[in-house]
Amino acid sequence: MAPRSTDPATLLEQARAGDRGALARLLTLVERGGPQSREVGRLVSPRGGAAHVVGITGAPGAGKSTLTSALIAHLRARGETVAVLAIDPSSPYTGGAILGDRVRMQDHATDEGVFIRSMATRGHLGGLSLATSEAIRVLDAAGRPWIVVETVGVGQVEVEIVGKADTTVVVVNPGWGDAVQANKAGLMEIADVFVINKADRKGTEETRRDLEQMLDLSDLAHDAWRPPVVQAVATEQKGVDELWSTVLQHREFISASGELQRRREFRLGEELREIVARRLEQRARAVLGDGRWDTLQADVLAHRVDPWSAADEMLGPVQG
Amino acid sequence: MAPRSTDPATLLEQARAGDRGALARLLTLVERGGPQSREVGRLVSPRGGAAHVVGITGAPGAGKSTLTSALIAHLRARGETVAVLAIDPSSPYTGGAILGDRVRMQDHATDEGVFIRSMATRGHLGGLSLATSEAIRVLDAAGRPWIVVETVGVGQVEVEIVGKADTTVVVVNPGWGDAVQANKAGLMEIADVFVINKADRKGTEETRRDLEQMLDLSDLAHDAWRPPVVQAVATEQKGVDELWSTVLQHREFISASGELQRRREFRLGEELREIVARRLEQRARAVLGDGRWDTLQADVLAHRVDPWSAADEMLGPVQG
Repeated sequence: MAPRSTDPATLLEQARAGDRGALARLLTLVERGGPQSREVGRLVSPRGGAAHVVGITGAPGAGKSTLTSALIAHLRARGETVAVLAIDPSSPYTGGAILGDRVRMQDHATDEGVFIRSMATRGHLGGLSLATSEAIRVLDAAGRPWIVVETVGVGQVEVEIVGKADTTVVVVNPGWGDAVQANKAGLMEIADVFVINKADRKGTEETRRDLEQMLDLSDLAHDAWRPPVVQAVATEQKGVDELWSTVLQHREFISASGELQRRREFRLGEELREIVARRLEQRARAVLGDGRWDTLQADVLAHRVDPWSAADEMLGPVQG
Repeated sequence: MAPRSTDPATLLEQARAGDRGALARLLTLVERGGPQSREVGRLVSPRGGAAHVVGITGAPGAGKSTLTSALIAHLRARGETVAVLAIDPSSPYTGGAILGDRVRMQDHATDEGVFIRSMATRGHLGGLSLATSEAIRVLDAAGRPWIVVETVGVGQVEVEIVGKADTTVVVVNPGWGDAVQANKAGLMEIADVFVINKADRKGTEETRRDLEQMLDLSDLAHDAWRPPVVQAVATEQKGVDELWSTVLQHREFISASGELQRRREFRLGEELREIVARRLEQRARAVLGDGRWDTLQADVLAHRVDPWSAADEMLGPVQG
């Protein structure tokens, strides 16, 4: 066997032909950051926009991984291919490895039509959030039509990351207060679809009522999408067909209304803003670690120059 | 009378000749920020280093202003001139005005040998901390040999500002727990001299014992300065002579050991670092408000360029 390429253009070509190993290596380049990551970014940027991104979030233990696994099975039974990004901001663990509670997804690991990847930050300048955006573009450019982004929890970073999806699925469980918790965690604002998973347990109806009540109270425009509430038992593959058809309805709705385009443009604008901020941070670090710093500081200490003039000498005049 | 100058060089000349009005206008320029502030900075920078800066901090109600006023009286009785910067980070109030509880200092307002100024941030890019550093340099360059920097409280900003002093005086009162509070507020680390003010009240001995005990426990090097504990009743001018002679001893000690020079160099280095950080923040704001931003974002949205390349195009290559 010939040695595998590390050239981004070659890897992308191979990935587009269905090579999961090449796709994995592209994502590793993205995670690492650096010049090759930038090269990947330039290659995939013009090819984006065909994939639909589904975000899945909810409290730990709600059954997100099980639901994701059930969705994979549903899609595969229909001959669709799917890619999954499993995001765990709290874990330094990386490299396409499967986390402990994601073992269930391993069922699909040998399936050529499924690509599963755990994301971590590693060297990426922009952190997990920007790395996820880039990874989504890579999967999109590689021709994966369905991309599921699953997070482990409902912290600020998780909500931010799952907000990169076109359709956001919020998973809750039956039981007093679970809907209220979802509201507190800021999930009402980002949910496009609610799933009450483990809906064979008692309290399902109360939870549905709580959710509907909160939706009644929320300030939805009359022509806006009202998040449907779907019931599921993911371990038994129950309700998964309804979930997926709801996701497809949502996709149809926001495509027709222009909301999909607006969301994507808004996200890309936000991403650009974040990259500029990160670049300036990076520049600050570069300046402060620069050899000129010592000379400059010595001049200031000797009162040969005042600190503001010294700072401007180092940075050049302010733009704009 | 000829119209008063607003030219920084002329104002500095007048201030050095003892003109308090000119000195006040220089500080107003510094508070406002902007090009004239920079001009003031360039003018005063080479003339610094002669003044000794005494910081006075402590909890509200400890009697800092009364003690400052008593110090002024002590110095004036010996023919010394003195300048006071009264810093209140919580107050937007500005312009050399005297705050309510600083009325006592008004006694000295008509004395040509005393200059009192309340500092506020107004337009200064660097906030109160950097504005205070510049104001100290202005007073120094104007030939004021003693500069007292007094803060209203013991919050983070206050501790940071009072840390700009050559000698830091921490004021506590008699009573159970006051010394412990000072420790909690991080004042043990910055104190060079402790004053138990209102030492005619009961509990003075206990507070002294508490302070000495905490000093015993602190990790002082064997040849380091151990902060003396002075007792005072500022309202009756009692203990103020001892306080001042302790300040002079500290000044002598850190001058001889080289610590004064090290402190000043460290502070100036930190200030330079902070200015660079602020300048980069300012630049980020300038870039994001720039007209080019829209063009750039449109290119990203149309997938004509990836966001990282767009950011670099906007900012230029990373330096260093």
